[in-house]
Amino acid sequence: MSASLSDCPLCRDALLTAPEPGVELLLQRPRYRVVRVQDADFPAFYRVIWQAHVAEFSDLAAADRLVCMEAVTAVEQALRRQLQPTKVNLATLGNVVPHLHWHVIARFDWDTHFPAPIWATTQRGADAERLAALRQALPALDAAVLQALESVPG
Amino acid sequence: MSASLSDCPLCRDALLTAPEPGVELLLQRPRYRVVRVQDADFPAFYRVIWQAHVAEFSDLAAADRLVCMEAVTAVEQALRRQLQPTKVNLATLGNVVPHLHWHVIARFDWDTHFPAPIWATTQRGADAERLAALRQALPALDAAVLQALESVPG
Repeated sequence: MSASLSDCPLCRDALLTAPEPGVELLLQRPRYRVVRVQDADFPAFYRVIWQAHVAEFSDLAAADRLVCMEAVTAVEQALRRQLQPTKVNLATLGNVVPHLHWHVIARFDWDTHFPAPIWATTQRGADAERLAALRQALPALDAAVLQALESVPG
Repeated sequence: MSASLSDCPLCRDALLTAPEPGVELLLQRPRYRVVRVQDADFPAFYRVIWQAHVAEFSDLAAADRLVCMEAVTAVEQALRRQLQPTKVNLATLGNVVPHLHWHVIARFDWDTHFPAPIWATTQRGADAERLAALRQALPALDAAVLQALESVPG
């Protein structure tokens, strides 16, 4: 990981004691960490970040791919149980930061972009009331995410 | 699957003998099929479509999640070997068609949207020459994808 330290923000964040900007760190484990993204339009937005500096999912060994996706699945399951979202979106893009990280995002039919991807054009204005209710649910959601991850290897 | 047949285009496509519009069918297996999407801007764009009608990745049993991601990984590996893309993008969104399907897309630093997601705003005009070269590589790419999938359970 150290070879990439100077260039890769996700390697820097893993090693610094200061929190990453724009995210809430939930869990640090040997192979991955889990953060919640502080996003105004999509509050129920988590990332599973692989600790080692690899660019592509297929850079992982089969056993690590399994662990990685079981962590992603645990986050998805917690989102579904706590929020009953219209849909969960999973994606690993990494075009800007080519260090393996998975986006796990609860989507609602009332959100600003639904049914378009969150990266597409806005479909409607933000629903302040529903967003406030969703933000109020975040402490319980974080706890549910952590609980779901207990059964996943680190 | 039959309960969803009338409403879900991905269930209809699995049962009809006619080809799905806009895609090239590469492989039919009991649990999934693999198609190449005919996309003008992103020719190296495949989908792994789960045959059973489930909405979310976490609807699959653990053994099926493993098979599903190994199929996705095989497609990614073939893309990397044949094309050396700048990045591979993996995503399962399903906001419009909530039937589990994975997008596997080779991205290049010259493509119309890079580094933005393909669903975001265009960054530049299409590079007709490079796109033509990429389209010429598709028969060999399809063959490599099929070969990579040989080692994945059906």
